Amino acid sequence: MIMLQPQPLTRERFAPYGEVIETLVDRATAMNAANFDRFNDLGTAETDGTGRVAISIVRCRIATSLPYRFDMVERHALGSQAFVPLTPCRFVVVVAPPEESVEAADLRAFVTNGRQGVNYRRGTWHMPLIAFEAGQEFLVIDRAGDAPDCDEHSLEEAVTVAEAW
Amino acid sequence: MIMLQPQPLTRERFAPYGEVIETLVDRATAMNAANFDRFNDLGTAETDGTGRVAISIVRCRIATSLPYRFDMVERHALGSQAFVPLTPCRFVVVVAPPEESVEAADLRAFVTNGRQGVNYRRGTWHMPLIAFEAGQEFLVIDRAGDAPDCDEHSLEEAVTVAEAW
Repeated sequence: MIMLQPQPLTRERFAPYGEVIETLVDRATAMNAANFDRFNDLGTAETDGTGRVAISIVRCRIATSLPYRFDMVERHALGSQAFVPLTPCRFVVVVAPPEESVEAADLRAFVTNGRQGVNYRRGTWHMPLIAFEAGQEFLVIDRAGDAPDCDEHSLEEAVTVAEAW
Repeated sequence: MIMLQPQPLTRERFAPYGEVIETLVDRATAMNAANFDRFNDLGTAETDGTGRVAISIVRCRIATSLPYRFDMVERHALGSQAFVPLTPCRFVVVVAPPEESVEAADLRAFVTNGRQGVNYRRGTWHMPLIAFEAGQEFLVIDRAGDAPDCDEHSLEEAVTVAEAW
C-alpha cells in the first residue's frame, strides 16, 4: 500500500500541476478607486479551443475523513478545472503531472490552508474531490462542451492519503 | 436625484443582465460516486474570442454602506465578469442591459441573499463593486487580454441605492 503524506500547498510546489488561487500580498493592485485590492490573474481557465468555460457549484453530500484510501484518478484532457471553497475550509488534493500515463508513484498530496483554491492544469491527473464536512461548497470553473471530458484511470495499487493535520 | 430600491436577486429578474451563481435544487446532479451534488453550468465565462478567462480574487479595503450614491457605471465589452463571495455575504448590484448606451433610468438594483454570486453578461453596464464589510473577498472570473477592457460612463444624474434590508 502506498501512503501519501500531504504537504502544505504552495504555488511553487503546485506549479507542475496547476495554480493556487489565493491572495498573495505581492499580487495586490488597487481597484475601484482603491476601495478594493485585486489579486489579479491567479489562474487561467484553459480549454482546447472548443467548448466554453462554465461556472458551477458542487456541494459535499458525504464527508470523508483521513486517512483516505482511493484507487482511481481522473483527468480532463480538454480543459482546466478549478475548485475554490465558498466558505473557508481546508481540503486535500492529490495530483500527478499532465502526462499521458500515470501510476501511483507519480502522485503527490497537498493540503490547503483553508483559504486556498486550486486550478488543475488541463490534463493534470487528480484524485476525485473529497471534503471533510457535509454541506461544504466549492465553486468549480471548468470546460463545458458537447462531449464528456473525463478520463478515469484505475491505479494498480491503492493509495492512502495520511492524516494532514 | 434618482433613488433605486434593491429587489431580491433571482435568476428570472437578472436574466437580461447575466446569470446568478447559486445552488438551485432543480439543478443538482450527483458527482464523484454521489459524494457531491453538482449544480452544473450556472454561468458561462464569455469572451470575444480573444484573450482568455482569468481567475482572480478581490478584497474589500473600504466598506460602503447604504444609502450609497454613485454617478458612474462601467462595462466590459469583450467579456463577462463574475463575482462570487468567498465567505457568505449579502451584496448589492446595479445593472443596465448590454446596449451601446446607458442612462440612469435604465438601471436596476438587486440585493443578493448572502449565498449568491453574479455573472455579468459581456457588455452589461454595472455599478463598480461595493461591499459592506472590509476584508470581504470575492472570486472574480473575467477575461484577461493585452488591452484593458473597461468602458466607464458618467451618468448625467447621480443615482442613490436605497437601504436594502
